[in-house]
Amino acid sequence: MKERELTQKDAMAKAAKLLSAAKTVFLATNGSHGHPNLRAMKPLVVEGAAVIWFSTSVGSSKIIELVKDEKAAIYGYSARTTAAFRLWGTIAILDDAASRKHIWTDSLKDHFPGGVNDSSLRVLRFNVVSGVYVGKDGKSGIFSILEG
Amino acid sequence: MKERELTQKDAMAKAAKLLSAAKTVFLATNGSHGHPNLRAMKPLVVEGAAVIWFSTSVGSSKIIELVKDEKAAIYGYSARTTAAFRLWGTIAILDDAASRKHIWTDSLKDHFPGGVNDSSLRVLRFNVVSGVYVGKDGKSGIFSILEG
Repeated sequence: MKERELTQKDAMAKAAKLLSAAKTVFLATNGSHGHPNLRAMKPLVVEGAAVIWFSTSVGSSKIIELVKDEKAAIYGYSARTTAAFRLWGTIAILDDAASRKHIWTDSLKDHFPGGVNDSSLRVLRFNVVSGVYVGKDGKSGIFSILEG
Repeated sequence: MKERELTQKDAMAKAAKLLSAAKTVFLATNGSHGHPNLRAMKPLVVEGAAVIWFSTSVGSSKIIELVKDEKAAIYGYSARTTAAFRLWGTIAILDDAASRKHIWTDSLKDHFPGGVNDSSLRVLRFNVVSGVYVGKDGKSGIFSILEG
C-alpha cells in the first residue's frame, strides 16, 4: 500500500510533533522474569524524535531493569485523533550535574524536595534508534536514526 | 512502609475497579531485536483483574510477537487521579467461535467488516499472573493469582 506510506523524513517530523505535544508517554522496559514492564512517564525535554529526557527516582524498578538491559520503547498517542508513534532505543542512566540541570523544572520538587541536587534524582536519556508513526488517516511510516 | 501497603485482596479489587472503568490500557509485549513493544488497546471484556480480552488483526505485529513469546504486561491509569495498575501475565491467541462471540461488539465492525466471523479477527485472552496497584494516595499493593 505505497500510497499510505510516509517518507522517513515526514514520519519522523510527525512523530516529533506529536511527541512535543504529549504530556504523557508510555515507557516499556524489559522487566523481571522475561516479562516486559511499562508505565506512564512525563517527557521533560524533547529533542525531536531523537532524544527524550525523563527523571526517575534511584529506587525505581526502572533503574534495576535498565541497569540489566538498556533497551526500551516509548509509545505516545493522541486520544482525540488516535494518531500514534512508537520509538525504540536505549536509555542511559545519568547522574551528572549537566544532565540534572538539563531536565530540572520546579514541578519536580514534589518528588525531589532536595531540588536539582537531590540524591535520589536520576536522569534518563532515551536515544531513539528507530520509530514508526501512524496518522489518524492511517498513513504511516518508519524511520531510523543512524549513529554517526 | 507497612502503613502504605494494601492487602493482596484490596490491591486486586482496586486494580479490577480501575481496569473496568478504563477505555484504554497499554499492552507491552516482547518485541523484535530484544526491545519491548507497546501500544494502546481497548479492553473488550474484563473479568476482574484476572482475565482481560482484546481483539486484534491476524496481520498485527502483536500476533508475530505473541507467537514467539506469550509473556506480556498491561498498564492502566487514571489521568485524573494518577492511580495506576500493572498486570503481568500471558496471552493466548484464540480463533474459535466461542471466543469470537465472547468479545464481539458491533463497534468492531469498522475494523472487521465481516463481523464476528471475519477471517482477519483474532481474540487475545490475557491471563493475569501477578499485578500491582498504586493509589492516588500512594498506597500500593501487589497480588498474584495462583493457577489451580
